[in-house]
Amino acid sequence: MEYGFVDFIISTGANLYHDMHYALAMVMHRGDFRLDDTKLQQEGVIRIYDILFADKVLLDTDAFVRECLNSLPNRPIATSELHHHLGTQLLKAGVKPAYSVLAQAAAWNLPIYTSSPGDSSIGMNVARHALDGNLLTLDPLADVNETTAIVHHATRNGVIILGGGSPKNFYLQTQPQLWEVLGIHKGGHDYFLQITADAPHWGGLSGATPSEAVSWGKIKPDQLRSTVVIYGDSTIALPLLTAYVVNKAQPRPRKELFAKLEELLKELKDAYMTGKEARP
Amino acid sequence: MEYGFVDFIISTGANLYHDMHYALAMVMHRGDFRLDDTKLQQEGVIRIYDILFADKVLLDTDAFVRECLNSLPNRPIATSELHHHLGTQLLKAGVKPAYSVLAQAAAWNLPIYTSSPGDSSIGMNVARHALDGNLLTLDPLADVNETTAIVHHATRNGVIILGGGSPKNFYLQTQPQLWEVLGIHKGGHDYFLQITADAPHWGGLSGATPSEAVSWGKIKPDQLRSTVVIYGDSTIALPLLTAYVVNKAQPRPRKELFAKLEELLKELKDAYMTGKEARP
Amino acid sequence: MEYGFVDFIISTGANLYHDMHYALAMVMHRGDFRLDDTKLQQEGVIRIYDILFADKVLLDTDAFVRECLNSLPNRPIATSELHHHLGTQLLKAGVKPAYSVLAQAAAWNLPIYTSSPGDSSIGMNVARHALDGNLLTLDPLADVNETTAIVHHATRNGVIILGGGSPKNFYLQTQPQLWEVLGIHKGGHDYFLQITADAPHWGGLSGATPSEAVSWGKIKPDQLRSTVVIYGDSTIALPLLTAYVVNKAQPRPRKELFAKLEELLKELKDAYMTGKEARP
Amino acid sequence: MEYGFVDFIISTGANLYHDMHYALAMVMHRGDFRLDDTKLQQEGVIRIYDILFADKVLLDTDAFVRECLNSLPNRPIATSELHHHLGTQLLKAGVKPAYSVLAQAAAWNLPIYTSSPGDSSIGMNVARHALDGNLLTLDPLADVNETTAIVHHATRNGVIILGGGSPKNFYLQTQPQLWEVLGIHKGGHDYFLQITADAPHWGGLSGATPSEAVSWGKIKPDQLRSTVVIYGDSTIALPLLTAYVVNKAQPRPRKELFAKLEELLKELKDAYMTGKEARP
Repeated sequence: MEYGFVDFIISTGANLYHDMHYALAMVMHRGDFRLDDTKLQQEGVIRIYDILFADKVLLDTDAFVRECLNSLPNRPIATSELHHHLGTQLLKAGVKPAYSVLAQAAAWNLPIYTSSPGDSSIGMNVARHALDGNLLTLDPLADVNETTAIVHHATRNGVIILGGGSPKNFYLQTQPQLWEVLGIHKGGHDYFLQITADAPHWGGLSGATPSEAVSWGKIKPDQLRSTVVIYGDSTIALPLLTAYVVNKAQPRPRKELFAKLEELLKELKDAYMTGKEARP
Repeated sequence: MEYGFVDFIISTGANLYHDMHYALAMVMHRGDFRLDDTKLQQEGVIRIYDILFADKVLLDTDAFVRECLNSLPNRPIATSELHHHLGTQLLKAGVKPAYSVLAQAAAWNLPIYTSSPGDSSIGMNVARHALDGNLLTLDPLADVNETTAIVHHATRNGVIILGGGSPKNFYLQTQPQLWEVLGIHKGGHDYFLQITADAPHWGGLSGATPSEAVSWGKIKPDQLRSTVVIYGDSTIALPLLTAYVVNKAQPRPRKELFAKLEELLKELKDAYMTGKEARP
Repeated sequence: MEYGFVDFIISTGANLYHDMHYALAMVMHRGDFRLDDTKLQQEGVIRIYDILFADKVLLDTDAFVRECLNSLPNRPIATSELHHHLGTQLLKAGVKPAYSVLAQAAAWNLPIYTSSPGDSSIGMNVARHALDGNLLTLDPLADVNETTAIVHHATRNGVIILGGGSPKNFYLQTQPQLWEVLGIHKGGHDYFLQITADAPHWGGLSGATPSEAVSWGKIKPDQLRSTVVIYGDSTIALPLLTAYVVNKAQPRPRKELFAKLEELLKELKDAYMTGKEARP
Repeated sequence: MEYGFVDFIISTGANLYHDMHYALAMVMHRGDFRLDDTKLQQEGVIRIYDILFADKVLLDTDAFVRECLNSLPNRPIATSELHHHLGTQLLKAGVKPAYSVLAQAAAWNLPIYTSSPGDSSIGMNVARHALDGNLLTLDPLADVNETTAIVHHATRNGVIILGGGSPKNFYLQTQPQLWEVLGIHKGGHDYFLQITADAPHWGGLSGATPSEAVSWGKIKPDQLRSTVVIYGDSTIALPLLTAYVVNKAQPRPRKELFAKLEELLKELKDAYMTGKEARP
């Protein structure tokens, strides 16, 4: 992000929720995936594979999230706005904002989206906020339009996919959103690099090949030969790639897209309206 | 669904979008995952693993979805409401509603949720609807509260998970939503049966064991020994299980939860408010 | 085997060793893969995934194997001869020979090979037999020539592969053995059905596609479209396939290849010698 | 090998066969696993995942192997003797012996075994040699006794496993060979590091956990916590580990075990005979 190699991020909510523990300097431990979970549960310890922490970490992070929600508007907002707000509050309150993706993204005006806004402790706390009578909600359609507007504006598009899942399609679908739904032809993404342990043969989207994406107009056919799938663990492959890029490539000017979203949305809307009028 | 063995469904949007092709009697073909995708793209053929269809299938389904949106209210709604409306329209318009999950669910008042409402051609068309100036949007927090209300009301809870991904957690999180976020203790789910080809060792949620879910209070510890993970393909395992259940078990009265959501939400809200007042 | 659908088998040694427990009516238990192995080891319990048995089962089966070795010749033999001998002894001594692959194969003169004769408790006991001063050993090259002779004699060849590993290649290599090494052209196998959970993208032989085998002359190119890979667990897929075949197909006359090996080897040798003389 | 970090190797035959192409400076190409195999076969090109070479590479390597066989004795030999002989010939004849595992192992008296001696083009050519009337064969039981003798002699034992398959068990079984078959108690291996993409849940040996090996007495129970499984691709993980070790650790004196096999075998035999006499 700092060197301008990342323009925007689509993440699961869980990755962003647990990112806040770092910014708030909460205590987490490296454990072992073979521990006795019944004993852990009795002792109030939460396990994510081999990471352990007290359930108080959840309760305190929840309290921080809910405190932040009070200064957000009482209407549907994009998740980019929610995440920017959380990041800004972490920059203010956080003891260690340098360790947080949310905080750094806010510092550099880099928008972060989630494709499943209700699916994580962030969403769970906004849901409680709603039970309290507030009208704040998250608008997944605003996210679809913002990500499509970013892709529409760019001259070349591409993605690094860590894993797969819902965020993978949420990025790739911006191309069919242009040609299939909005009637604006663009022709597909230019770059595609996925790090995954999933495989095509189970038939799911996470393991689907870049080739399959070509048939959907998600990837440009003439770019297919340069698409790359790294089969392995992101926690091994990404640090290697990042170290390489940071050492070999010149930093690029940061795009600060969060500050330009309104403008990009207007461009997209205009292109859509122009095409709509032109059609019989 | 017909025999009362399914109370509600959490699905990806894509499964529900492509379900509509069946209800609308559109033509789909069984092909081969080894076909040349560049050639397919040139000929306007879309591929999902080994399923093929003309891109017109997408465009016509999109038109059907957008037509349906016009009779929905101009405000945030739960995805259960969207899916019930689509199912109802498929029952009216559909040539083959018996082949459609959405249509059958609407017929039996069975609510269907998606954890990632913007991630699919359904969401993409609602996003275009928004660009057209409508205020209809999908409210993921309403979905969190509705699913939690259903789980809160029940005496015993459990799930059959096909694959994993975002829908897996969206169901499981209803328990931490009760104890962690709303302060209502419930103790975890009673049943857990997952059919997956994913594995715990990659560290992701799709492959995470029921045991890990115990540490989160998502599964009751004393039920852990009876949790089951079937490693394999849902398209092989689910028909076997379904044939077994339909032949061996007596049908149960259908719960028709879609008609009772308001009542269940009220129960949840009351329990939350009561607990809130009781705390210091 | 009984219905003539199996002509010969290539197995790991471990599958054949543990098969003997059934014929000898030893006690085995279904357990759980999550048991504490340190405790099991202290209590003399052996675990294979979720199967448990006392270490006495190993010691008694070992004693049975070594007793059988005494009536075998004092020279190198093919593993088909070893396995036929073990099967014959199980038929005589075994309490439940109907539950044993080795015993049934012996009854029907069906040859069984292993591609890794030293790798299992069978091989380990033959190795002890050698330490005792005997000259009996297993001759993997005799196995190569016998399996190649069987394939050479047949008009159409094919295989059902459960899993992958060394036995997969040991069958497939009979075709390159003909054209690449012996100079007898045959053109590849006609059928290929693999049940596996492994995947091509790791680059190993177990997960390699039938297509890759075409480049090696292991599979006939014009048969490629009808090759099948079932991604899943053999313990689920094989019973389904077997039930289907036994119910739908007419039994075939059993080939009793074990009684014809000498004749087939002579045919192979003649074809090899004829070709050798013809070459410059 | 050069720095004394490797004492002996258990490999598939295929890895050793294709290793010879490098020593003989044959031409191999990096291609793509998505190439058309029917076309490759027509043009005489062999594919191993993304590696391509002319079928002449096979024929020339076969001729080299067969030439080497002529100077081997006319009786059963261990695969360590075959591989040492091939390596020695590569050192003499090879244009690039520094690129060959077989050649370097021969130079440093490091024994190499294969658990499946008939399963590869090396075995296939020895099988042709047998059809020509020679009595040379490979003795898998000699390999069992040699590897067991090496483990028996050592004070601490351990292994780095790349992948899994038959070589994995061939190493691990040396411990049950001691206690279960030969009646010499040793207590299990001390180290276990496996790099694999396979998983425990399919129930196979390749993916089996170090924990399962404890129940078999293959791994010492008190060493279990320090066993490591790296889930990923050996071609990524092994170079990282190797670079680390070569840079951080002092070289160790090479053991040159190939020159000491007779002595170690005598030790094993003595221990076995002593124990045998001691038992009732």
